[in-house]
Amino acid sequence: MPIDPDADIEITAFDWVPDFARGFVRDLRPRWACEELDLSYRERLISAVHRPDWYYAEQPFGQVPVVKDGNLHLFESGAILLHLADREGRLLPASGQARADVLGWLFANYNSIEPLAMELGTVLLFHAGEDWAEARKPTLLEEIEKKLRRLADALGSREWIAGEFSIADIALVCTLREFERSEVFAKFPTLVAYTERGSARPAFRRALEAQLAALAEAPPIAA
Amino acid sequence: MPIDPDADIEITAFDWVPDFARGFVRDLRPRWACEELDLSYRERLISAVHRPDWYYAEQPFGQVPVVKDGNLHLFESGAILLHLADREGRLLPASGQARADVLGWLFANYNSIEPLAMELGTVLLFHAGEDWAEARKPTLLEEIEKKLRRLADALGSREWIAGEFSIADIALVCTLREFERSEVFAKFPTLVAYTERGSARPAFRRALEAQLAALAEAPPIAA
Repeated sequence: MPIDPDADIEITAFDWVPDFARGFVRDLRPRWACEELDLSYRERLISAVHRPDWYYAEQPFGQVPVVKDGNLHLFESGAILLHLADREGRLLPASGQARADVLGWLFANYNSIEPLAMELGTVLLFHAGEDWAEARKPTLLEEIEKKLRRLADALGSREWIAGEFSIADIALVCTLREFERSEVFAKFPTLVAYTERGSARPAFRRALEAQLAALAEAPPIAA
Repeated sequence: MPIDPDADIEITAFDWVPDFARGFVRDLRPRWACEELDLSYRERLISAVHRPDWYYAEQPFGQVPVVKDGNLHLFESGAILLHLADREGRLLPASGQARADVLGWLFANYNSIEPLAMELGTVLLFHAGEDWAEARKPTLLEEIEKKLRRLADALGSREWIAGEFSIADIALVCTLREFERSEVFAKFPTLVAYTERGSARPAFRRALEAQLAALAEAPPIAA
């Protein structure tokens, strides 16, 4: 277990989130990477509900995770994954086509796939039941299905998205778990199996347990 | 002018797009980076309307740009910016906090800011006038305003988002231009000035002209 209060690496996470977000908050990604890389980390928990003003100086949008690595201060989970992998020389090849493939898929996750998962969250969770959200759903699900079909074609029969298991898989598996909320996802057994393969890794299980353990059961009392 | 049919670097772009997309297609980003870095590139134009089947083997979602650099094959504009900058050792510091800041902002653009620009495009362009899109607009504009306020606060009185001009500015200025479609953007004079500062750079002007020059006036005839 790499949680260690004396570790050089610090991961900032929330101390409470609503049920639908448990196991899906983005600090899962650096936790998972640390577990894969055998890097210890310490936790710093902040309130998502009463987000401290000073936190915006560390993270411009008040989001988690923020990671400190010694004196280095990092934000955005994609940039953090990149840093941790390059730091250890693992989960991301150092050069050549192999590096280009992992970085291409890392950005594909963050900019070509995850924005659809965010809009799905908007429609299914944050504006659930509103008339406009119901009316948007069919075209959004069509777009998602088209995107996931292309992704399934690209994955084909490969075990991981770009050669060896990499930070692109960490990001992509975390995003694909969000599509499980929609019936469309089950149409792609290739992607279902890939997501299960990723989330069956011991490092993922430990990261998920650590995130869930950090989250209090009851919401904070109004300030 | 770095367009040269014998260049090592090849940028794939579209040969026609509708009016609203002219000057906004993502090949603008590597074109701009090449201009800043004094790198010649050649163009390969493909049809967005009759997108060739073979292209999906090069770009899993059929998007542009794809970039070839000698034998290297790259996709996703964020990954391409990162490659070009590291190749030349410019527009992205090699290490330390300066690199972490640029990478943090690069991913912030692609995952925290641009998804809102994409949803704005969905509402204002692709589903313009539909009832649900009209009904979504007010809450979306509120979210955009909140995000842009945080971004303006983070930029403050700085000239560029993370120290010297970098690939994070290339990505961010290109994204902010998309928010100009909404009346919300004018509420942030800091961001308006930043976007103007970026798009006044000679390298940006040349990249924009090159994209516009590559686009035919008339749409292709149905196959």
